[in-house]
Amino acid sequence: MAEAALELARALIARASVTPDDAGCQALIAERLAAAGFEIHHLRFGEVDNLWAVAGDSGPLLCFAGHTDVVPPGPVEDWHHEPFSAELADGWLYGRGAADMKSSVAAMVCASERFRAAHPDHAGRLGFLITSDEEGPAVDGTRAVVDWLAERDIAIDYCVVGEPSSTAALGDTLRNGRRGSLNGHVRVRGRQGHVAYPDSADNALHRLVGLLADLGAQHWDDGDDFFPPTSFQVSNIRAGTGAENVIPGTAEARFNWRFNPCQDEAGLRARVERLAEAHGIDTDAFEWRLSGHPFVTRPGALIDATRAAVAEVCGTAPALSTGGGTSDGRFIAPTGAEVIELGPLNATIHQVNEHIAAADVARLSDIYERIAARLLGG
Amino acid sequence: MAEAALELARALIARASVTPDDAGCQALIAERLAAAGFEIHHLRFGEVDNLWAVAGDSGPLLCFAGHTDVVPPGPVEDWHHEPFSAELADGWLYGRGAADMKSSVAAMVCASERFRAAHPDHAGRLGFLITSDEEGPAVDGTRAVVDWLAERDIAIDYCVVGEPSSTAALGDTLRNGRRGSLNGHVRVRGRQGHVAYPDSADNALHRLVGLLADLGAQHWDDGDDFFPPTSFQVSNIRAGTGAENVIPGTAEARFNWRFNPCQDEAGLRARVERLAEAHGIDTDAFEWRLSGHPFVTRPGALIDATRAAVAEVCGTAPALSTGGGTSDGRFIAPTGAEVIELGPLNATIHQVNEHIAAADVARLSDIYERIAARLLGG
Repeated sequence: MAEAALELARALIARASVTPDDAGCQALIAERLAAAGFEIHHLRFGEVDNLWAVAGDSGPLLCFAGHTDVVPPGPVEDWHHEPFSAELADGWLYGRGAADMKSSVAAMVCASERFRAAHPDHAGRLGFLITSDEEGPAVDGTRAVVDWLAERDIAIDYCVVGEPSSTAALGDTLRNGRRGSLNGHVRVRGRQGHVAYPDSADNALHRLVGLLADLGAQHWDDGDDFFPPTSFQVSNIRAGTGAENVIPGTAEARFNWRFNPCQDEAGLRARVERLAEAHGIDTDAFEWRLSGHPFVTRPGALIDATRAAVAEVCGTAPALSTGGGTSDGRFIAPTGAEVIELGPLNATIHQVNEHIAAADVARLSDIYERIAARLLGG
Repeated sequence: MAEAALELARALIARASVTPDDAGCQALIAERLAAAGFEIHHLRFGEVDNLWAVAGDSGPLLCFAGHTDVVPPGPVEDWHHEPFSAELADGWLYGRGAADMKSSVAAMVCASERFRAAHPDHAGRLGFLITSDEEGPAVDGTRAVVDWLAERDIAIDYCVVGEPSSTAALGDTLRNGRRGSLNGHVRVRGRQGHVAYPDSADNALHRLVGLLADLGAQHWDDGDDFFPPTSFQVSNIRAGTGAENVIPGTAEARFNWRFNPCQDEAGLRARVERLAEAHGIDTDAFEWRLSGHPFVTRPGALIDATRAAVAEVCGTAPALSTGGGTSDGRFIAPTGAEVIELGPLNATIHQVNEHIAAADVARLSDIYERIAARLLGG
């Protein structure tokens, strides 16, 4: 039994499913879930295979969410084990996707099999939302499935995303949110001229550095219990012809916020545009691109169940974190679901020789089963 | 007589003396001055031909200063007249050097010939300091001649530089000084990182824009009767890898002051370094290059004589100006000489179809002669 999740993880790793190619992973998952009584929906959007599976007729919906696609292996000669051979060595499971996140998906499937067998009349519903485009553009993946569910009035109450959240030991970190990310580009126009005749010119760079200095000195917020303060960073700037005696007529910069739920896109933009006005910079000097809204799941039924499950399996209390980059949780959280991310150690993700402790697959499956039992065991 | 200066100007223009090539101009000038009783010194330093000529044995030394070199003609096909053909058309004298500044040199030579003939026993001394490297590096030109004079204890009391100072009408503007020019380069070092993890990085650009904004907001001085306020301009800035998610680890900028005699290099640098400290930028982040000290000639014998000469010839009162770029006056003024710049209209200098009113050559020569008569006529 403890070997089942590890064997399924190895079978998934052996399918070389580089984004957006699912390479048969979802067929294997669907076969197992169908046998466990799940209703199966293969949802192909564009070039992306997605799977929605659900068991149970009514009541709270707990969804396991994850992806079958992996990033490319990189230079194969640098791997000590073939990236898609899913080898076991010295207690480690090697392979592309071992950590991110085929082991999680396998652990979820086996956890559901055991849960369904142990609780044939469980309360609520258990679902799976699996995509093959989490590592890619993420347009035809989870986002599209969320739309498909909304059209059918299917609302997820609790969602466990299998992203590798652990840092030093399995279960030490639980992600209960992510910061938002807003990108800005500004191009200031002035009038080029000779430095000896400043009255005939308008130094675009002076106005830009004035604005950026103001922005850099802003106190955005103090963060909250779950989020660090909003952070503003200028990533790029450019102005000047190279000549020392020419006043630049244009100047441009790129900047980014990682922002917590104290902020939103409209508020950040309005604040910039208000400051810009004082430097004679019009709103049409700016271009904006929102990479992701912030989201947070506050302590409640899902976090309580997860903390208890981790304590039982690992004997530890996971820390809540909202750090790191974006994940597909950003598409699910806005529907109103409680969302947490819990998965294996992330030390080797996207690297050569990606690996995790082989024993962690079964332990993770145990955690997932206990979460389901606490929320739906009835 | 009125045609002599124009004919000499045309003869000089016909010699294609692009920096540092004198192309025989100084030989022609020396021949004329020698015939007028001048003692001739051909001073070749490096690749640069210079001419020092002097007439008279003792007393105040009035020096006419100028250059025989010209900037390249640029695209010859854009000229309506061959750049070195010195053509006269519709009352205009065309050619590279017509305004900057072969007409002035010719006017000075002819003025001296007439002055020496009219005042064979004039008081004081009349000198010529002519270089063929004013438009170039200016290392082996006027600066070297000034050193040569100093070694011989020859001190210039009054110097008229023939730079094209006039803007709308001959003699409307008299330059009685120039601002200094100080260039700075700063390279700020921080620590590169990911924008999602600002605590692990140190944004070099944030510190740089903070400093530049402070510098841009400084009030340096109010200028004085002869100088506008000191002006600070950032000419170039660069930071960032192009990626939106990378915090730049280095950031650099170039900046320049055009400064009046209220400031000096040491004071400007000290002020920057004091401000930089508040932004965590060390003094060794800076490189400095002084292009020129400021200088000014206050109203006195030279300006009085020049104003009177202009009033007599043109019927106008020239405005005093310290605007514009640098000139060889910066090398002569520090010796203690009174220095003014007076020459033809500068509207077309360094452009294709450089030209001035042909009649202005003789008028300018008349002005120069009257200046000599007032200062040395005795």
